[in-house]
Amino acid sequence: MSGWQGCVQYLFYYETPKTLVIPNITVGFVFRFTQLLVVLYVLGYVCLVQKAYQETDSVVSTVTTKVKGFAFTNASSIKYWDVADYVIPPQGGNSFFVLTNMIVTLRQTRSRCPLLPDHSTVCVDDCDCIEGLNDPRGSGIQTGLCENFSTTVKTCEVISWCPLEIDSHLPDHALLDSAENFTVLIKNSITYPKFNFYRRNIAPHINSSYLRSCEFKRSSDPDCPIFRLKNIVSEAGEDFQDMAVKGGILGIIIDWSCDLDWWARKCSPKYSFRRLDSRIPNSDVAPGYNFRFAKYYMDQGGEEFRTLFKAYGIRFDVIVFGTAGKFGVVPTVVNLGAALTFLSLVPLVADWFLLTCLRKKDLYSRHKVSYLKEDTDSEGETMRTIFGTK
Amino acid sequence: MSGWQGCVQYLFYYETPKTLVIPNITVGFVFRFTQLLVVLYVLGYVCLVQKAYQETDSVVSTVTTKVKGFAFTNASSIKYWDVADYVIPPQGGNSFFVLTNMIVTLRQTRSRCPLLPDHSTVCVDDCDCIEGLNDPRGSGIQTGLCENFSTTVKTCEVISWCPLEIDSHLPDHALLDSAENFTVLIKNSITYPKFNFYRRNIAPHINSSYLRSCEFKRSSDPDCPIFRLKNIVSEAGEDFQDMAVKGGILGIIIDWSCDLDWWARKCSPKYSFRRLDSRIPNSDVAPGYNFRFAKYYMDQGGEEFRTLFKAYGIRFDVIVFGTAGKFGVVPTVVNLGAALTFLSLVPLVADWFLLTCLRKKDLYSRHKVSYLKEDTDSEGETMRTIFGTK
Amino acid sequence: MSGWQGCVQYLFYYETPKTLVIPNITVGFVFRFTQLLVVLYVLGYVCLVQKAYQETDSVVSTVTTKVKGFAFTNASSIKYWDVADYVIPPQGGNSFFVLTNMIVTLRQTRSRCPLLPDHSTVCVDDCDCIEGLNDPRGSGIQTGLCENFSTTVKTCEVISWCPLEIDSHLPDHALLDSAENFTVLIKNSITYPKFNFYRRNIAPHINSSYLRSCEFKRSSDPDCPIFRLKNIVSEAGEDFQDMAVKGGILGIIIDWSCDLDWWARKCSPKYSFRRLDSRIPNSDVAPGYNFRFAKYYMDQGGEEFRTLFKAYGIRFDVIVFGTAGKFGVVPTVVNLGAALTFLSLVPLVADWFLLTCLRKKDLYSRHKVSYLKEDTDSEGETMRTIFGTK
Repeated sequence: MSGWQGCVQYLFYYETPKTLVIPNITVGFVFRFTQLLVVLYVLGYVCLVQKAYQETDSVVSTVTTKVKGFAFTNASSIKYWDVADYVIPPQGGNSFFVLTNMIVTLRQTRSRCPLLPDHSTVCVDDCDCIEGLNDPRGSGIQTGLCENFSTTVKTCEVISWCPLEIDSHLPDHALLDSAENFTVLIKNSITYPKFNFYRRNIAPHINSSYLRSCEFKRSSDPDCPIFRLKNIVSEAGEDFQDMAVKGGILGIIIDWSCDLDWWARKCSPKYSFRRLDSRIPNSDVAPGYNFRFAKYYMDQGGEEFRTLFKAYGIRFDVIVFGTAGKFGVVPTVVNLGAALTFLSLVPLVADWFLLTCLRKKDLYSRHKVSYLKEDTDSEGETMRTIFGTK
Repeated sequence: MSGWQGCVQYLFYYETPKTLVIPNITVGFVFRFTQLLVVLYVLGYVCLVQKAYQETDSVVSTVTTKVKGFAFTNASSIKYWDVADYVIPPQGGNSFFVLTNMIVTLRQTRSRCPLLPDHSTVCVDDCDCIEGLNDPRGSGIQTGLCENFSTTVKTCEVISWCPLEIDSHLPDHALLDSAENFTVLIKNSITYPKFNFYRRNIAPHINSSYLRSCEFKRSSDPDCPIFRLKNIVSEAGEDFQDMAVKGGILGIIIDWSCDLDWWARKCSPKYSFRRLDSRIPNSDVAPGYNFRFAKYYMDQGGEEFRTLFKAYGIRFDVIVFGTAGKFGVVPTVVNLGAALTFLSLVPLVADWFLLTCLRKKDLYSRHKVSYLKEDTDSEGETMRTIFGTK
Repeated sequence: MSGWQGCVQYLFYYETPKTLVIPNITVGFVFRFTQLLVVLYVLGYVCLVQKAYQETDSVVSTVTTKVKGFAFTNASSIKYWDVADYVIPPQGGNSFFVLTNMIVTLRQTRSRCPLLPDHSTVCVDDCDCIEGLNDPRGSGIQTGLCENFSTTVKTCEVISWCPLEIDSHLPDHALLDSAENFTVLIKNSITYPKFNFYRRNIAPHINSSYLRSCEFKRSSDPDCPIFRLKNIVSEAGEDFQDMAVKGGILGIIIDWSCDLDWWARKCSPKYSFRRLDSRIPNSDVAPGYNFRFAKYYMDQGGEEFRTLFKAYGIRFDVIVFGTAGKFGVVPTVVNLGAALTFLSLVPLVADWFLLTCLRKKDLYSRHKVSYLKEDTDSEGETMRTIFGTK
């Protein structure tokens, strides 16, 4: 036998295990049953539940929002508020803020005025005030003078925007309480680029006239993309008027999880609502949501002045997420293959059962397993076999 | 044999399957060929296509944008518009809006005025108007009076920002049509934190003078980070002037997928453009993109008035995504190992072929498989073996 | 034997490999040791390192930020700046900009003025200027006139917002240098929806009074959600005053990676800071971060004018990421199972060792492997066996 032949033999002679068929229904049943479990797992879990035969893609989304409605406030005089007044920023992206409550400080100018009275700011005369004192959590730089804040109280004077904002008394009923009746139209277009799949949250069967009059209701109008703010807040388990006083953040969550296989093709947005900021009611640590902004004006003399708003309200964050799946050859091969390797574990179970649990386990063991006796060279095995098969 | 020895034997005597070598080139070839397929799959798919030997990381990105250009509008008088006028918001983040068309309502004050005429607002006398009527999709709260809207038409009066905006006639040629020649510089820095890899979309070889004069062209200038708005829109398959009238949303997508292994180290941004809002041309349901904002002024008497803009334009969203991969020991071991378990499925295929498809399958079967006859105790097997090998 | 019986036999007679026990401690040790390695890998890597027994979920996060502090600028007159002046946009979302330096152009009106002098704009008389010339990187449309820019230089006149901004001389010490002492309160609420787990970055034990006075320090106050801007910048390895001149972008990265199993339940935010824009110091290509915005005013005659700001400053981007894991039955079964299939590779290793490395490998080979001689029908095998076992 030449080296070449040996090499061919080594490569192409097939080496296969010798097997023994055991005519025992019990172990056969255990074997088949375990196999069945594995196959069921593969089909059931991998294919049906995990849909591992699918390729997936993440959603690319764009959102525009448009609030409608108007409100009146009654502080001092009746004032009319429309979208351009109470929606900040005005662009209508995926995060918008609706003003519901505010503290307004009119006609502030860059000048000097006495601080708000407080245990550290009340003074008797100028000696109590330190010129140049500059508390980063304060309201300005002290001039060193002690001025009349009111007829009874004197406080240190600061250089600041004056008059100072008095934010200790927030209206405990939201000024724009009718904001609960505002509506918001949410336009959301999504793409799954890998599948070239495009869809809007405005379904094709929706026409302009329906869109002009509809309103989202989970039971009766689940497709209408127009939401009443009050309903959004109450679906999130909150009370609008409560939330309107100190403000808060509300998530409008749109789930676009889709199965794009033809036998299951349905893909529509599912809306849910959730309060995103602190839901711990008793926490008095910095609750709500507010920020300060100003409108700037100039008087005839070219002097700038501003109206400062401490704005309280609800920020709505539209959060879009989703994954789409579609049948793909590659993941099918990979996952089925990986699952099939589990089948190679089944004989371990059946062998263990065979040699441990059955009545005739010694007989099976004798025929399945041979022992090589090393010390008597190769004789032992023959003898053992003879003994075993006698 | 003591218990200790038995235990050692059980643990350290090696139990190996008895095998039979079958000198048949066909089945050997099937065996080796199947093995080869598995190995090719492992090398080809797992290593080359999926790059499963790599650790991956997601991009952390920051974007700044800067629009340049100016425009003139000709309504009533020539007006000059620059960046501070038409880019909203001004900060230049990853989403910016370029104003292209608008409906301007000058000098609105909080006052009273007749509604726009419409089947539900036209009136003959005060009896037709309901004081306090408050339609959330309307323009204000009715005073109950019926006033002259024009010399021929009377409508109900409302408290609102007056005069009311008339948005029925949108200019059908965009006012800022020259916005198509605006350019935008996009600065995009990315980091793959796990690999401590940092890169900008402004390549190191780009100097200031090139940057002052270049413009992105996919063929000739693919590295220049300055984009002409017209080109962005046309690469997305849209017409700028069409889009400018009613507005829209355009995605500037930057793909930073990178292979950071030294033998493949190249990592540069790939730009693509895509319209993100509705691309269904006939859909008349809320098309385009617009929002309202106002500039607030104060007259000498301290009365606030505003200029209301219904702004139409294109919102550009810069979307950065990407995954970087680099050789890692752990994923290499895991994935190679997992792939190798596929090899344990190969003998199943070869055995099936051996016992089903070959001419001498009975011979092979007799030698490979023994049958244990349970009822005659262990005799059966011996006889079967003798019979089989005679 | 009827077909039915044959079918039952085929299905439920258990076919098991015949095995040979080899009483060799060396190969037994190799076998057990390899098994041990696999088991250690499974327990160590899969369970402890990868925590593959856990289900995971991605963080849903909401951020609000609130800057505090004030500053003075000294250009021409002392001016006081507070939050409403220097934070843009004012809403306090996850990205906010703090103004630190600026070029202000006061009282611009839409009118005509000579261009800034430059090799292409200087003129001698009207012939040097082209009426209607419209350079998109220029400042307006030329009128064709040549006007006095100063007493010594004449330049072409343009229609634009006049006077033109002169942005060649940026103050090389930031005007709002005291911005380094501003503080920012970051409120961050996160949810892992799958586990119904909710947490804030303000730990429950933090009370209002602590929150009024604390400041984040990595060593002594790692739980305080109030950050001094100077410290943020220096933790990112930058110098605030350097960065304040030309601006930049700073990432505040909050890592909420959590292990929610009861035996490991700890979940607190980890803060880190990183400069996100160019960190290449010598790069003179468009460094820093700036944008232009304007405040609009109207004079008594109803003429609009504006103050243009070229604003330099630091944009802070709050980036929240994280994954939570919790024990789940399904991933435990899947991953343990997958890891166990590695055990089926162990005999390959041990067999190779047995037939290659041991002194008695020929003996072992003779007993383990039989050869079927095809040409002599089945006789060969018997003889080989006899020969082998003699």
